[in-house]
Amino acid sequence: MILDKINNPKDLKTLSQEDLNKLAEEIRPLIIKKVNAIGGHMGPNLGIIEATIAMHYVFNSPQDKFVFDVSHQCYTHKILTGRKDGFTNPENYYKYTGYTAPEESPHDIFKVGHTSTSVSLATGLAKSRDLKGEKGNVIALIGDGSLSGGEAFEGFDNAADLGSNIIIIVNDNEMSIAENHGGLYKNLKTLRDTKGKAELNFFKSLGFDYYYVEEGNNIEKLIEAFNKVKDINHPTVVHIRTLKGKGLQIAETHKEAFHWIMPGTLDEKPEKICKIEDYNSITNEYLYKKAQEDKTLIVINPATPGVHGFTPEFREKMGSQYTDVGIAEEHAIAYASALAKDGAKSVLAVMSSFLQRTYDQLSQDLALNKSPITMLVYWGGISGADATHLCTFDIPLISNIPNLVYLAPTCKEEYMKMLTWSVDQNEFPVAIRIPTGELISSGVEDNTDYSQLNKFKIDTKGEKIAIIALGSFFSLGKSVMEELREKMGINATLINPKFITGLDKELLENLKKDHEVVITLEDGLLNGGFGEKIARFYGNSNMKVLNFGGKKEFPDRVPLDELYERYHLKKELIVEDITNCLFEKSSV
Amino acid sequence: MILDKINNPKDLKTLSQEDLNKLAEEIRPLIIKKVNAIGGHMGPNLGIIEATIAMHYVFNSPQDKFVFDVSHQCYTHKILTGRKDGFTNPENYYKYTGYTAPEESPHDIFKVGHTSTSVSLATGLAKSRDLKGEKGNVIALIGDGSLSGGEAFEGFDNAADLGSNIIIIVNDNEMSIAENHGGLYKNLKTLRDTKGKAELNFFKSLGFDYYYVEEGNNIEKLIEAFNKVKDINHPTVVHIRTLKGKGLQIAETHKEAFHWIMPGTLDEKPEKICKIEDYNSITNEYLYKKAQEDKTLIVINPATPGVHGFTPEFREKMGSQYTDVGIAEEHAIAYASALAKDGAKSVLAVMSSFLQRTYDQLSQDLALNKSPITMLVYWGGISGADATHLCTFDIPLISNIPNLVYLAPTCKEEYMKMLTWSVDQNEFPVAIRIPTGELISSGVEDNTDYSQLNKFKIDTKGEKIAIIALGSFFSLGKSVMEELREKMGINATLINPKFITGLDKELLENLKKDHEVVITLEDGLLNGGFGEKIARFYGNSNMKVLNFGGKKEFPDRVPLDELYERYHLKKELIVEDITNCLFEKSSV
Repeated sequence: MILDKINNPKDLKTLSQEDLNKLAEEIRPLIIKKVNAIGGHMGPNLGIIEATIAMHYVFNSPQDKFVFDVSHQCYTHKILTGRKDGFTNPENYYKYTGYTAPEESPHDIFKVGHTSTSVSLATGLAKSRDLKGEKGNVIALIGDGSLSGGEAFEGFDNAADLGSNIIIIVNDNEMSIAENHGGLYKNLKTLRDTKGKAELNFFKSLGFDYYYVEEGNNIEKLIEAFNKVKDINHPTVVHIRTLKGKGLQIAETHKEAFHWIMPGTLDEKPEKICKIEDYNSITNEYLYKKAQEDKTLIVINPATPGVHGFTPEFREKMGSQYTDVGIAEEHAIAYASALAKDGAKSVLAVMSSFLQRTYDQLSQDLALNKSPITMLVYWGGISGADATHLCTFDIPLISNIPNLVYLAPTCKEEYMKMLTWSVDQNEFPVAIRIPTGELISSGVEDNTDYSQLNKFKIDTKGEKIAIIALGSFFSLGKSVMEELREKMGINATLINPKFITGLDKELLENLKKDHEVVITLEDGLLNGGFGEKIARFYGNSNMKVLNFGGKKEFPDRVPLDELYERYHLKKELIVEDITNCLFEKSSV
Repeated sequence: MILDKINNPKDLKTLSQEDLNKLAEEIRPLIIKKVNAIGGHMGPNLGIIEATIAMHYVFNSPQDKFVFDVSHQCYTHKILTGRKDGFTNPENYYKYTGYTAPEESPHDIFKVGHTSTSVSLATGLAKSRDLKGEKGNVIALIGDGSLSGGEAFEGFDNAADLGSNIIIIVNDNEMSIAENHGGLYKNLKTLRDTKGKAELNFFKSLGFDYYYVEEGNNIEKLIEAFNKVKDINHPTVVHIRTLKGKGLQIAETHKEAFHWIMPGTLDEKPEKICKIEDYNSITNEYLYKKAQEDKTLIVINPATPGVHGFTPEFREKMGSQYTDVGIAEEHAIAYASALAKDGAKSVLAVMSSFLQRTYDQLSQDLALNKSPITMLVYWGGISGADATHLCTFDIPLISNIPNLVYLAPTCKEEYMKMLTWSVDQNEFPVAIRIPTGELISSGVEDNTDYSQLNKFKIDTKGEKIAIIALGSFFSLGKSVMEELREKMGINATLINPKFITGLDKELLENLKKDHEVVITLEDGLLNGGFGEKIARFYGNSNMKVLNFGGKKEFPDRVPLDELYERYHLKKELIVEDITNCLFEKSSV
């Protein structure tokens, strides 16, 4: 094995062209095997093996600095920079993260997981180099859909002005997560079609020097191109045409499905995938039906159709009533807002983590204009994900902006009632936090009129202790109630607040009569979240308040169970805290 | 007067070319007089009078829809759409806002004040028109620096894909607020230099049809161009070259200074402007001195140098150690973060309101990577500003993100100590909320070691009531303390927390011994802010907590005094609330 000899990038330098090619073919099955075993980004990594080898062959990391955009394509980079054991030995599959991680290696400069940041970050590194009077290349690798994000453009616009070395490798695999959208991708196509020779050239129009590599999976050609631009003294783009999923037939064919896969995907037969009802399926069934009735209903999504179950069939059926804006979350909010303002029914589907890119658009373009969109927030909650992909911040993000209504359903029936109400109303910008996990049915139709804002629902009336359990944590609240009954003989009150963005002051006031302690449970960050508002409300009273939720931190792949333990999000721990509070010991 | 006959845009249609020109010259002095009287955007409005007349002459608003980017250039539009009384009669100068406002007129579609949103919003309107099967033109007017914002690019990229009518008028006045930066502006220059004929064309590269108007202040030429594109069936850019400040000599010459002016600026003689020490002057004096000592210190600013007192002289002196990234706040954060990560000392200056554009960059590019930048946040606080320019949200925005340290100095000495500490340290991303208002000197040197995070300072030790008064509101806290002593004979404790992002749990715990009530005062939104964390901390104790700060709303030009009354941010009202709490009446 060639790979046996490669312990750091220097070991590449002495390899023959033939051995470099062999190395690529040794790395490919390692990636396929590992990704199939534990899940991960298949297509992006298979497409960029050759380019990564060529980069490390030509440039000298870490003196030359690589910035991987979104960084989910860094597997080969990890293999070449002393971390191959995380790929060769299945026991080490979890040893390294799936993203660049400075704590793992000096070859990783930033912790990155959201898209479109690499050019800005690289521009900073280049400027720092210049201020310090140092030498070296700064190389950003961007592509795979990230180009359309606003931050990427701001970066390109400023990098073009740098006046010194910065090399931006545009990895053009003709795809975003799904197919690409937008004018820029048409220009990339024109450039591919003309082998880089078209007069209209987005990058050149911004002032970049420009090189095109047709065979972006050919190490020799890549080395040739990279050698040309190495130590170049001005901003330069190298546009390389790669094949997403290269070397794995099914990934080459089904580029979208094999962008990121679940463990064991390659072992499954297609017919095994059976349809079960989940929050995605009931959402999309409703949306399609509604779209038939109302031709102004439009579903908008920033490049993550898979998250929402917007299959190619669904998208096709929806036709012009579906817009994938590409990786462009800011635009997605403004676009949805304008549609709603003009009387269309816009439904925006977005992942909690990526919604973070839109604070100002939520505030200015949407909330200030009170456009009645329906925003569906997916995956919101505490999780064992990478620090780059946490979905714990959406409640502080959304709920402190005026005019927005953020709803937290606890079951299918509530969710569908909220969704249909939201789509049909014209008063409020509404966000709905779709519960995580399996679909729960209460079996009871929800007749709530949600236009009466901020009405909490008493699920079970008790006394002494009130449990306000938000959204996904309603079932936790229920188990706490049961635990209190069983262990302490207390019949607690259980409340389903439904509304994240406002308090039911009358209900809270009434609790003072026969309750001593209120606890709040939320599946997200405590700081700036839901529970603190309850604590503030009761600040001038004798009511004790205990808030349960996530701590302000970036946990990185910490198992969920461990986080629940850490945050006291288990019924026994909660009951213990309540007991301590009742008997005035220090707690939480 | 021609203007006497103009009550709505229809009245324009019958005017001769000569009368249209006269109209422009009638409008010009009205704008100059009003802006000089009450302050406002001078240069942008003077530059766009002719284009606005031509737009209303050719298109039929509100059936055809205008979206004004940033919308501070909408004065002529307001004059032509039934609101001229706000300009002709000084008594009505405050009748209309300086931005588009749907509550004022059906010709204003969105409430807009932040930049770079128009193309996305227009794309939404165009799509809505198409879904509804309606006709009509959708026109976005963007320029004056807004093009470089990421949201604008996301909009352009998607608008290009629309496949139907959208007309984007690019108002190219060769300026941002200050001079323009970035590759795109060089392309605009190339296009101007070639009268729109250059092969490298940013807009065409994205797929837009493109028209160039050299004389962008010539109504006849503009009408000719707009007539060409009216009812066009595909995405089109009309690039017009205008003169910022046109018709007012001093504004044409001093484009940056006359972008936005204070009342009475035209009446003042330059020598009257005397230099007084303020937070800007001490900041910039320190930064320049430090930059001389340390060549890696760099000051970064997204296109608002005037806010920070970064005068042309200062910028020139700083040379390569100053970067104006243009309107590109996202890039600014990532760029600053990378510089700091690589060992440079990056100091980023940004207005509270515009910082809103960067939540995800603060979280991912900065905090997650723990890059030790110094971020100076300007104008944070409750104000009587337009709803689009409120600076009340930065505490909830910043302080719920892990790893960030957000500091609130109360005086010059603390501020300078925090600033010097932050610039010299390498551990934390630090933000400092520069106090608003006049410079306050405590006269006492600050010897605090700020690397010991979250240590609150007891300013005055008392009992029963503790006042935790943050940053700008420290003086309010002091006056409450005095009022309590005088009116109620209570010697309250006064605490200067200094840290917004963490609690001094030991100090708070100790207060329990001899205090019954803690009040918090913060110059910003209560929701998700500082005080709620204190309420949560004391939730399980007998301590009463009263939080004072801004309410979750978008007040629109509400006088500060009225807001203070509304929010109980006056010493008498606070003491009354404390009294009610002590005697257990309901309060706040």
